[in-house]
Amino acid sequence: MRKDFRITRRRWLGAGAALGAGLTACKNSAPVPEAGPSQLGKPVSAYGERSPFETAARMLPDSHYLTESDSFTPLQDSSGILTPSALHYERHHAGVPQIDPARHRLLIHGMVDRPLMFTMDDIRRLPSVSRILFVECSGNSGFEWGGGLLPDIPHNTAQSHGLVSCSEWTGVPLAVLLAETGLQKQAKWLMAEGADACKMQRSLPVEKADDMLVAWGQNGEALRPEQGYPLRLIVPGWEGNVNIKWLRRIMAADQPYMGREETSKYTDLMPDGTARMFTFVMEAKSLITFPSGGQKLAGPGFYEITGLAWSGRGIIERVEVSTDGGRNWRDTGLQEPRLPMAFTRFRLPWTWDGGESVLQSRCTDETGYVQPSREALLALRGRNSGYHFNGIKAWKVMADRSVVSA
Amino acid sequence: MRKDFRITRRRWLGAGAALGAGLTACKNSAPVPEAGPSQLGKPVSAYGERSPFETAARMLPDSHYLTESDSFTPLQDSSGILTPSALHYERHHAGVPQIDPARHRLLIHGMVDRPLMFTMDDIRRLPSVSRILFVECSGNSGFEWGGGLLPDIPHNTAQSHGLVSCSEWTGVPLAVLLAETGLQKQAKWLMAEGADACKMQRSLPVEKADDMLVAWGQNGEALRPEQGYPLRLIVPGWEGNVNIKWLRRIMAADQPYMGREETSKYTDLMPDGTARMFTFVMEAKSLITFPSGGQKLAGPGFYEITGLAWSGRGIIERVEVSTDGGRNWRDTGLQEPRLPMAFTRFRLPWTWDGGESVLQSRCTDETGYVQPSREALLALRGRNSGYHFNGIKAWKVMADRSVVSA
Repeated sequence: MRKDFRITRRRWLGAGAALGAGLTACKNSAPVPEAGPSQLGKPVSAYGERSPFETAARMLPDSHYLTESDSFTPLQDSSGILTPSALHYERHHAGVPQIDPARHRLLIHGMVDRPLMFTMDDIRRLPSVSRILFVECSGNSGFEWGGGLLPDIPHNTAQSHGLVSCSEWTGVPLAVLLAETGLQKQAKWLMAEGADACKMQRSLPVEKADDMLVAWGQNGEALRPEQGYPLRLIVPGWEGNVNIKWLRRIMAADQPYMGREETSKYTDLMPDGTARMFTFVMEAKSLITFPSGGQKLAGPGFYEITGLAWSGRGIIERVEVSTDGGRNWRDTGLQEPRLPMAFTRFRLPWTWDGGESVLQSRCTDETGYVQPSREALLALRGRNSGYHFNGIKAWKVMADRSVVSA
Repeated sequence: MRKDFRITRRRWLGAGAALGAGLTACKNSAPVPEAGPSQLGKPVSAYGERSPFETAARMLPDSHYLTESDSFTPLQDSSGILTPSALHYERHHAGVPQIDPARHRLLIHGMVDRPLMFTMDDIRRLPSVSRILFVECSGNSGFEWGGGLLPDIPHNTAQSHGLVSCSEWTGVPLAVLLAETGLQKQAKWLMAEGADACKMQRSLPVEKADDMLVAWGQNGEALRPEQGYPLRLIVPGWEGNVNIKWLRRIMAADQPYMGREETSKYTDLMPDGTARMFTFVMEAKSLITFPSGGQKLAGPGFYEITGLAWSGRGIIERVEVSTDGGRNWRDTGLQEPRLPMAFTRFRLPWTWDGGESVLQSRCTDETGYVQPSREALLALRGRNSGYHFNGIKAWKVMADRSVVSA
């Protein structure tokens, strides 16, 4: 029996009675179901599409005709640890450019020994690596601050927490490219720039370069246009906006570039009026994706509570769930493989008695960091920020079977 | 430094000189590349599509209008260990039915204590698990037998080896369903049946039930129609045809069903005229995906040889590559995570001197089984079979830079 399966089996064996109750919904006996199609189906195809019965979609904001905008992954429809590329969240500062890969170039210059310009063919020819990694907008779940920049806490799961997704990214380690250009001793920062109309720019410390990918692949095919086609920087565990899309330039310097996105934006305003800057790491966080906001349960009985946890500092070691508003917590089953800076799926059997129930999840990463309560986070950081909210999220199952933010 | 990244870094550091040679292709110095778009791009969207510049496609046979047919994953375009759902290989016996999930049912009956019929809602409500697993047609690379049922060995990578793909599958462990129906003591086989027009049927020993999934999810969304929407059996490591698509029925019995697909098909004819039956396990196998058949190299210099290895018996422990027709073999770097019965990606730096070169890969799985040579396999099994070819595959790089089957 495999490790990844054993977890489920153990949990399921423990759930015996609850499961039996849930299955009263199953019709007993009955003959073979209706015959199904008697006509031949469709032939093979070059590039498949999903069933017309499937409607999972990114949630678009009211102003989705704007090119500076975002769309939200429907985490309530998720399974496993991967996000389909078609449903990966979006955050654009000047819309999605259409780039011809044959004309795209990446320049590495500044405080380097040999400035170099790479074509896509150059880059595709170099050694590559693939890693399953989450990317999360620093503004994800920003509504939870309940003040400052953002309006009320939404009841919709996608709008609440949908600015995070997880893919298998393939690309050249940035260290490979920097070994070719060399890096001068005084170079301490790397400014990465996109080829979108706003020339999105962020500065990153050179110490992180060993961990970065210059990525051209996503989930087994080319990057999707919304994710930076043909080239994007992947900075594992760090806030989404530094994972520069449509990557065209990296400039080495002895100080940060102090561009628009690291002054007017992407800083965290504290209660005392100072601002935290270069707050790159996305701290450990978790979310129950079922049952979650906007869903409706079928009725009392057995359910599997499931959700996702992730940490910008490494592997998720533990996820606990409370079904009584935080009085009692139970350990959940964590699905293997648990990869650093990737989604980890957790699961817990639960029998709903039909009454109001507040569901919460709390994760711990390999550094021992425990996801804080909303109250603890507000006490520390105040309400003026829209970024880096990673507090415990509560969903309330109502007696009318609906699920809302609590 | 992470384990999965360290492998690449170590390999890259060892490749220093070769890399430098490859990068002569990079243009030196040069100012910032052309300005890129100055107009705003496209806004956010509900369900994304790939770039119009991307053309990777499943290879269709000449007779692809037929509903009994197959299409081949373009492994030559693959990266990482996942196959995009849109490019997962197909093998249909009666085409792709369009099934309304609200009307679909799964019946489990026969030698069970309580026959049960499940709706999709019933199944989605039960405990689930996700696993990254390959699925491979038993006829994959059958051309390599070089006789019997199949024509000449193709030079095209997809046609040669493209009847294998790897996805993250999500579903209910079959053991959970069988715990509800019970299984009578005399039940030794499970006949699984699809809802396609031919009612595809295969028999499986009950001992494997503990490892099977009744899957509804693929790569983070619903199963694709070509992969059995809304429900398919996943039988880890076993030949594709027993992973019954459009699953509608499982019947427990004391003997195999002996249906069409386990008598006239899916048996392996041996030189002595006997046939191997119920040859479920897909043995360890590997394939170099770059450089591979149908590709053309840019010219002499540095390349990264890369490919995939997989075994129906567990984890891939080792992949060696020869660039001189099998005289010398070198260990390759294996990308983490290496999961049981999933693709494992291997990589090796290589400098091509411009002359003819025969490239081969050879894998070893956790049981110690070593992928055999084509000659050893033919000596054992003869040339009458079209199934279960897992011999070492050779590609020949020609002096004109083209790559062909060797």
